[in-house]
Amino acid sequence: MRTITVNLGPRSYPIHLGEGILSHAGRLLREVSGEGRAAIITNPTVGELYLPPLQKALIQSGLRVTSIFVPDGEEHKDLNSLETIYDRLVEERFERGSFLIALGGGVIGDLAGFAAATFLRGIPYIQVPTTLLAQVDASVGGKTGVNHRAGKNLIGAFYQPRLVLIDVAVLRTLPRRELVAGMAEVIKYAVIEDSQLFDLLEQKLERLMDLDRDLLVDTIAASCEIKARVVEKDEREEDYRSVLNFGHTIGHALESLTGYKRFLHGEAVAIGMAQAAAISRRLGLCDQEALKRIHRLIARTGLPTGLPADAKPQELVKRIEVDKKSSGGKIKFVCCAGIGRSRFHWLSPQEIESELRHRT
Amino acid sequence: MRTITVNLGPRSYPIHLGEGILSHAGRLLREVSGEGRAAIITNPTVGELYLPPLQKALIQSGLRVTSIFVPDGEEHKDLNSLETIYDRLVEERFERGSFLIALGGGVIGDLAGFAAATFLRGIPYIQVPTTLLAQVDASVGGKTGVNHRAGKNLIGAFYQPRLVLIDVAVLRTLPRRELVAGMAEVIKYAVIEDSQLFDLLEQKLERLMDLDRDLLVDTIAASCEIKARVVEKDEREEDYRSVLNFGHTIGHALESLTGYKRFLHGEAVAIGMAQAAAISRRLGLCDQEALKRIHRLIARTGLPTGLPADAKPQELVKRIEVDKKSSGGKIKFVCCAGIGRSRFHWLSPQEIESELRHRT
Repeated sequence: MRTITVNLGPRSYPIHLGEGILSHAGRLLREVSGEGRAAIITNPTVGELYLPPLQKALIQSGLRVTSIFVPDGEEHKDLNSLETIYDRLVEERFERGSFLIALGGGVIGDLAGFAAATFLRGIPYIQVPTTLLAQVDASVGGKTGVNHRAGKNLIGAFYQPRLVLIDVAVLRTLPRRELVAGMAEVIKYAVIEDSQLFDLLEQKLERLMDLDRDLLVDTIAASCEIKARVVEKDEREEDYRSVLNFGHTIGHALESLTGYKRFLHGEAVAIGMAQAAAISRRLGLCDQEALKRIHRLIARTGLPTGLPADAKPQELVKRIEVDKKSSGGKIKFVCCAGIGRSRFHWLSPQEIESELRHRT
Repeated sequence: MRTITVNLGPRSYPIHLGEGILSHAGRLLREVSGEGRAAIITNPTVGELYLPPLQKALIQSGLRVTSIFVPDGEEHKDLNSLETIYDRLVEERFERGSFLIALGGGVIGDLAGFAAATFLRGIPYIQVPTTLLAQVDASVGGKTGVNHRAGKNLIGAFYQPRLVLIDVAVLRTLPRRELVAGMAEVIKYAVIEDSQLFDLLEQKLERLMDLDRDLLVDTIAASCEIKARVVEKDEREEDYRSVLNFGHTIGHALESLTGYKRFLHGEAVAIGMAQAAAISRRLGLCDQEALKRIHRLIARTGLPTGLPADAKPQELVKRIEVDKKSSGGKIKFVCCAGIGRSRFHWLSPQEIESELRHRT
């Protein structure tokens, strides 16, 4: 088992990482839980596979466990599902010492985290991410929240978990398309912060995507390490943390424009990264070689790089402007300044639009 | 103008206090607000009186202001009102640099504070409390939240305001019954922390309740000072902050038992304090003289001290047990250890019930 610590003073917590560690969950959780009462928040798909072993591990360690199901899908990350969770916690008389466990992907993690942040003004919670995307990104860093019909994550809180438990074994049951989508965030970390990770991905991408255990652990650990260091520098995204938005400004706009139906988040981010890298090249921030390597690596995972023909630059830019990261006209755009290096660049909506007309 | 600082490191903020300072709100707010976009959350009753002067002061200082009305009353401190606020903020494209202003009593303050805590994962907010209760208690310390039909404040967050603006002039339009109810919290501070404040109240209670300006400022400042020092020691109520629950364990139970209709919060707290003082006396924690002084002072304000005949101890204790402050059987009860001194005492539900049978 590998452990990475997120150092945030009184809000510090460990990320435990390994193959098959779900069955040690009871022991690991007892270390952080006092009163021994827990609710596992999950969805039917994940619950069918992993609720029984998790429950068993917890009960064997003397924890009292209940489970709360939320329907599968991003459209259920809303205030309604949140109320369902509140109602159950009230019914079962959860107290301040009780805690929540998020067993699932990003939707479950964000929702359960926000429920924990706001029930009785905050109870502890644990992340047990079951998608690659959630393991390398959503489960670490304390961003929690739900969607508003006007936009994603408009309602939420920064609220750190007490523990993140990453069992790489669960990735064996993850649909291939979701595994591939998760690779987008791994590539993102490599591009913005870690040229060694980029080299490793270039050398061993296929073995990694065949779920080689040691490679998985190394790659996810490296990703979590980068995320942890960024979050430590700027927990509440006042400035530096937005470096993690590399590929996301265009990616979010594309997801929004296509009604969150056509692309998985990681697929939209892959296109966003490819476009952002091309813009970085044209701005003279990185060389042609770096741009080529980024596009090639994304393509090798099976992820898309090109903007779909029907995504009009003008429409994309409109979406970017309503996105919460815009502020007073200019958009804070994360550029690639060579493999493993990033730079913020402020671009006007007009500049982004004209860049997108290149349709890399 | 008097200023008290709540020292919470990066979350520190000033409480400005004085007569007529609402008209300087623009200048005071500009010091804490960046982008200059604000939404005033208020209710029709308060809004009719104080929205025009506040808006005027803000607009004159170059702030862009919008207002959001929430219906009057505790029953509207719920997830529905919260959604109304979210919808308006989304509609008007509020951004991270925008901020909220809570203009009203505790309901408005708690609701607006929670909306601020959770919109875009947290935007700044300002408290402009217009009841005595909110001025001395609810507006300071960062407790925000809404009610669940199963109980008050079950959903919420600790989220500090950037500024508290207390204009004592607004108390001149406050209904007498609400002014009297607010006195319960002032007496609470005196009993648990400040014998000098208690002496002052004994000497000048009538003049204070006739709204003598200097006395009002002194008394509210002393109350905020005590609240600030307690919150500084224990922001998230992990331990010491619950000293502020003196009179509230029984008070909350009484409010709940009577459906939040018969008693104002301060009235129930007054009865709770009188009972808690009597229990403290019987436990030998304070002398008969202190008990008498507390009962006499409460009675002089016009607040009740005795449990109503139809409030059965058994029923009250049941409510205390479901209250979130109960934990694993024993109840953490705040006792009076002489005027200006408090002590925690753990009591079983049975012990509280038998104490309440004395019906002081």
